[in-house]
Amino acid sequence: MKQARTTLIIITTGPGLTLFTRPVTSWVDGQGIGDGLLTLFIRHTSASLLIQENADPDVLADLRDFFARIAPKAGPYRHDAEGPDDMPAHIRAALTQTQLSIPVSGGRLDLGTWQGLYVFEHRDRPQRREVVLHLIGD
Amino acid sequence: MKQARTTLIIITTGPGLTLFTRPVTSWVDGQGIGDGLLTLFIRHTSASLLIQENADPDVLADLRDFFARIAPKAGPYRHDAEGPDDMPAHIRAALTQTQLSIPVSGGRLDLGTWQGLYVFEHRDRPQRREVVLHLIGD
Amino acid sequence: MKQARTTLIIITTGPGLTLFTRPVTSWVDGQGIGDGLLTLFIRHTSASLLIQENADPDVLADLRDFFARIAPKAGPYRHDAEGPDDMPAHIRAALTQTQLSIPVSGGRLDLGTWQGLYVFEHRDRPQRREVVLHLIGD
Repeated sequence: MKQARTTLIIITTGPGLTLFTRPVTSWVDGQGIGDGLLTLFIRHTSASLLIQENADPDVLADLRDFFARIAPKAGPYRHDAEGPDDMPAHIRAALTQTQLSIPVSGGRLDLGTWQGLYVFEHRDRPQRREVVLHLIGD
Repeated sequence: MKQARTTLIIITTGPGLTLFTRPVTSWVDGQGIGDGLLTLFIRHTSASLLIQENADPDVLADLRDFFARIAPKAGPYRHDAEGPDDMPAHIRAALTQTQLSIPVSGGRLDLGTWQGLYVFEHRDRPQRREVVLHLIGD
Repeated sequence: MKQARTTLIIITTGPGLTLFTRPVTSWVDGQGIGDGLLTLFIRHTSASLLIQENADPDVLADLRDFFARIAPKAGPYRHDAEGPDDMPAHIRAALTQTQLSIPVSGGRLDLGTWQGLYVFEHRDRPQRREVVLHLIGD
């Protein structure tokens, strides 16, 4: 049994979902761990992680718009020191995931056919986001 | 330290929560791992996992109805190629869980008295859903 | 490779977020495990876990108010046997997390600078909440 760990840097481009399945699977491939558990952890509170459909880009646009409607910038918020996009960003992050774990089998993530790994950016401007990857197995 | 892995097939019956605590605990029982960590991962983007109250069926009906209200079928969605129930299904999945991990102690899941494990179906029709179980421990 | 496990008791004070980063890091410090994976699991269905900003208390108040708006006590709920605050509590728990896993590196949680660990109480009255901590690593 062994462990491996790295940090991926994902540059986002404003509100919405950035696919990063490939750099994750590529890193897992190089660790010499066939069976185990991969954990992804995003080190931020205004961006989050999501597993969603990787086929139709309309799904990604609809997801972005839904979260903009449910936690609008014009909400009655106390917290506005970092701009009107910051508090809704925290809420949208709270409604999705800071962490995801995925079983690994035969060196491959157990993702379904249509599942992609996304960083969900909730701030208006592009950001540099850190995602820690931890793999345990043999 | 060792690992075990399997895939459970859960047949759902339209929108709502299907309890599957028993097949999970039954599989864990057979692995000879007393202390460890169990991870459940659903390989779909229009169904999800949820831990919720297992006592009053009204709670399950209220949960189903809440998610139908918050992400209604009649939303202003771009994505409709797979029918009007597909995009709200993706949103309801994004608002709940694709993965759950539960500590195991003395061969038993550390669930609270009132916690049950559910597959949350978000499509209108019954579906065949795959949930991967991964257990690590000793 | 080894494992450790404990249960923390968190006393909440009504609806809102109770920071508990310190007792978690303090317990991890004492386990002699430098690199691994920490899992937190709350054994309840009307309180949840959340990683959120630990800097501005306004963020915590805004989060509490958002979840009170999105799942109000005056919703059209069937389940009311445990009082009008119980069903919205289940919904707010379903929208956040029952479990969180965080990589540990060099004996420290891989939390970002602004990330704190919170128990999110959704019932009106103070409660005694159990959070199981499981650590695996070496």
